[in-house]
Amino acid sequence: MRTGFRRGLAGLVAFGVMPMGAGAETQIIHDPEFTRMEQEFGVSWAADDTQVREKLAALEARFGKRPNIVYIMADDVGYTELGSYGGGKIRGAPTASLDRMAAEGMRFLSFYSEVECSPSRGAVLTGRHPIRNGVYNITLPGETGSGLHGDEVTIAELLSDAGYYTGFFGKWHLGDDEGNHPTEQGFDEAEWSEGNPPWWVNNKNASKDDDIGGFTQRTLMHSPGPEGFPYDTGGVMRAKKGEEPQLVYEYSMEKYNTYDTEVADNVIAFITRRADSDQPFFVNFWGKGNHFWGAHPDFRDTPAETNTAAQMVEHDYNVGRVLKTLTDLGIAENTLVVWSSDNGPMYTVHPHGGYSLLQGGKGETREGGIRVPALAWWPGMIDPGQDPLDIIQITDFFTTWASVAGVLSEVPGDRVIDGVDQSGLFLLGEGRGRRDYVFHYNRTKLEAVRKDQVKLNLKPRNPDFHFYEVFNIYHDPAERFPNEAHNGIWAGPGMTKMIQEHLLQIEDYPHRKVQSYYKDFDTSFDPQASPVYVPQKTVDW
Amino acid sequence: MRTGFRRGLAGLVAFGVMPMGAGAETQIIHDPEFTRMEQEFGVSWAADDTQVREKLAALEARFGKRPNIVYIMADDVGYTELGSYGGGKIRGAPTASLDRMAAEGMRFLSFYSEVECSPSRGAVLTGRHPIRNGVYNITLPGETGSGLHGDEVTIAELLSDAGYYTGFFGKWHLGDDEGNHPTEQGFDEAEWSEGNPPWWVNNKNASKDDDIGGFTQRTLMHSPGPEGFPYDTGGVMRAKKGEEPQLVYEYSMEKYNTYDTEVADNVIAFITRRADSDQPFFVNFWGKGNHFWGAHPDFRDTPAETNTAAQMVEHDYNVGRVLKTLTDLGIAENTLVVWSSDNGPMYTVHPHGGYSLLQGGKGETREGGIRVPALAWWPGMIDPGQDPLDIIQITDFFTTWASVAGVLSEVPGDRVIDGVDQSGLFLLGEGRGRRDYVFHYNRTKLEAVRKDQVKLNLKPRNPDFHFYEVFNIYHDPAERFPNEAHNGIWAGPGMTKMIQEHLLQIEDYPHRKVQSYYKDFDTSFDPQASPVYVPQKTVDW
Repeated sequence: MRTGFRRGLAGLVAFGVMPMGAGAETQIIHDPEFTRMEQEFGVSWAADDTQVREKLAALEARFGKRPNIVYIMADDVGYTELGSYGGGKIRGAPTASLDRMAAEGMRFLSFYSEVECSPSRGAVLTGRHPIRNGVYNITLPGETGSGLHGDEVTIAELLSDAGYYTGFFGKWHLGDDEGNHPTEQGFDEAEWSEGNPPWWVNNKNASKDDDIGGFTQRTLMHSPGPEGFPYDTGGVMRAKKGEEPQLVYEYSMEKYNTYDTEVADNVIAFITRRADSDQPFFVNFWGKGNHFWGAHPDFRDTPAETNTAAQMVEHDYNVGRVLKTLTDLGIAENTLVVWSSDNGPMYTVHPHGGYSLLQGGKGETREGGIRVPALAWWPGMIDPGQDPLDIIQITDFFTTWASVAGVLSEVPGDRVIDGVDQSGLFLLGEGRGRRDYVFHYNRTKLEAVRKDQVKLNLKPRNPDFHFYEVFNIYHDPAERFPNEAHNGIWAGPGMTKMIQEHLLQIEDYPHRKVQSYYKDFDTSFDPQASPVYVPQKTVDW
Repeated sequence: MRTGFRRGLAGLVAFGVMPMGAGAETQIIHDPEFTRMEQEFGVSWAADDTQVREKLAALEARFGKRPNIVYIMADDVGYTELGSYGGGKIRGAPTASLDRMAAEGMRFLSFYSEVECSPSRGAVLTGRHPIRNGVYNITLPGETGSGLHGDEVTIAELLSDAGYYTGFFGKWHLGDDEGNHPTEQGFDEAEWSEGNPPWWVNNKNASKDDDIGGFTQRTLMHSPGPEGFPYDTGGVMRAKKGEEPQLVYEYSMEKYNTYDTEVADNVIAFITRRADSDQPFFVNFWGKGNHFWGAHPDFRDTPAETNTAAQMVEHDYNVGRVLKTLTDLGIAENTLVVWSSDNGPMYTVHPHGGYSLLQGGKGETREGGIRVPALAWWPGMIDPGQDPLDIIQITDFFTTWASVAGVLSEVPGDRVIDGVDQSGLFLLGEGRGRRDYVFHYNRTKLEAVRKDQVKLNLKPRNPDFHFYEVFNIYHDPAERFPNEAHNGIWAGPGMTKMIQEHLLQIEDYPHRKVQSYYKDFDTSFDPQASPVYVPQKTVDW
């Protein structure tokens, strides 16, 4: 929910030498490291901005409206899962549509998400790291107070205010409280999963023997099962802006297994409805693939025979359907399509939870947890076959879409925006990126910092060694060899200064305070719920 | 040296249902697992063979001779080093030529080498695993008796006998004894590195302060340095078949740093000389890239600033030059070009020794040591853009080249040949491969066995756990999660039978006995060689 904002004095002070993007009046408060880069590169960035604006103006003249934006967020897809990233077939899950999307567009080699699900979702909508916007935990069924706060300003709000028609479909996972819902966060229409993620484990209608793909519910019981813990995880909700959300259906095993395809159907219907409108659209397809729970019956015959593989192939098929829809409707050239994962693989459920050849997974700031695949596709505007190495972070989508839609000047100026405008990288190509640094948070902790090739891991991993680990990510993308001598030297004063300035800025712009609690759960102990087990057949002797 | 062979009775008995390839009279003694596959798939293989023969006959009719074969062997290049395998740029070493070669041809996703240098070199020339042909160690400077035995029959001998003109250029590393040299192993002409590998460490002309790229010699001294251990590692040798090898030059630092390019120059000159001959040619370019020692001055400016990156980029450039030569001469369509690594990265010298996102490196049967990149390029004969998942092992090149050249019938029938004919895979595409198994030896030990998706590691790694590790290579290419339940079950009786039959066959066809020893080294202790160190500057107090 957008509640209005002021342009703070601090914003004016922090503002660097060159104006950013189209809005010369923009006063985005960036990280001090960005401001330092801006002072160094501002002149060439301004020249790039001119080219970007010309390219966009020519397109708008041709189509008579600003470009549509489609964002597809996949779930738990590791860096090396797609064929174009060295995965696909070798994982028993070929990804033909995503590989074609990569070949026809841009494949980011250094894209960083947040460490896990809800945090990445909040970051992409607000352009702010989870620690700043308050969504720094995975929101769980029954949890309240931890969803996306109404005072955060989402890209959907910016675009909606600027005349875009905005839609959301899929796994929301940003809170179920009043004020959290997509139609209260800038979306004109939405159909989304409630109960936080689409949560079949422990659902009141679930049985332990439900067949959800490569395994049954029985193998998933991390906490007491449905019989002992019947929780109403809700179902799929629908609303238009200003309306009360309505339940479309309660979860069922069948619906659960085919959810990614259902979301794709909704997205395709939305695009088809809105294609000819005078309004440009912004639509989100936040699918279930390849999250480990469930597998569409039509895609279970992969060579790998895992839920991950089935979901990856299903999701790939659905991405292809969306791109085909845009092409068939003749609007592909006026539509920027961005696809990314939300975070790395979830190894607690191996082999059903994704994979990365990089070290680490979901929940970790090791590369495997945060370096994930991301693609951009825009025929005629993004040249085919590009694979930029430029660092880009998930918060950058916020600022980049704002730039592409011409609303950078509306980005709030009273808070730190971590995202930077990467429209030059998207539309002009490799080397036009605007960051060589990333701050990697894990929930409330700053765990790692990347600058150029060097990554400093602030989380001690060796109890006998009080120095931090330093890696050269070019030499050692899987982080096996800490502390090559010359990295250690580099990571000294330069890195320290960058971190200090980042932390000092937080004093001026404090983090959003979060107070989450659980509701509705009867956690009182019932001895009948865990009776002493007696086998049905016993030998009497 | 080819010493003649007999077709053994055991070979006739082991011979399966269907004749193989062009030579219906061929009686290759294969592994029993291959014979089992042949019984299952022989009918469709025979149909594939007919197509392959027709395709080759049409080409021969067009060019009036059998196809040329170029084999490029790179050094210590890990699975994920090339851009087309998810490396390249992300390692600070873009590989434009090899990526183009992959895009225009075939990129093997499941190519397995032997675990290290000399063993892979012997295996590719003989079609036999190192344990069988005797070259199961890395041959070292001064070592004798461990090179490629004269009774082994090389692909160069087969092709030379059949009218090919055969050339060898580069890092031989298969022994320096009389009888070992390339011109004594079937090559009509050769220029190669002596002293086993091109060995600058400990060379009598080397200084510890020599600049060999990302570091000096001083940082490389694993054993006593040049001053204490001046060894004549020789230099580059040249010969024609039947002639005594002549020293072209002694090693020098300059020559050492630019060796890959020099080898490429020789290969290009050979191809240019032989292009118009009535004889087809078989030429080998066994380069130095990206072996960690040395870096060409022209390629030291990579973003990664390592020897590995410099050599990878240099070698990539040289591969491009070879392909361009074939194209410019108009013989590309009559030339099969195969490129592969010899083994995985050498981590003892990180960051200068290559890299793989897979676990393990050179000297290990972990995937990182043996699953390496390999490409095939043959315009008009191999369709572009293919990436077969079919398992192929380095010994298969022997049999495949014999098939392509029409000399399968000349493969010796008195010994086990591990290579299988993969000409169907090369010329007809994915799914036409002829093995779903590999035996992975490490020196004299059978350490791992692959069958379909399952890999059984026979080397115990957990001292508290007496079961073997079993991995599903589709689920877990980096071998992090041993013993997924259903793999363990699969790896039971089926795998055991396959291993037993493999081992029983060895009783009928024993391994070649090897007796290596060192010569020329004065290893007597000289106390003067290690005097007590006294700094040049001392404080007198």
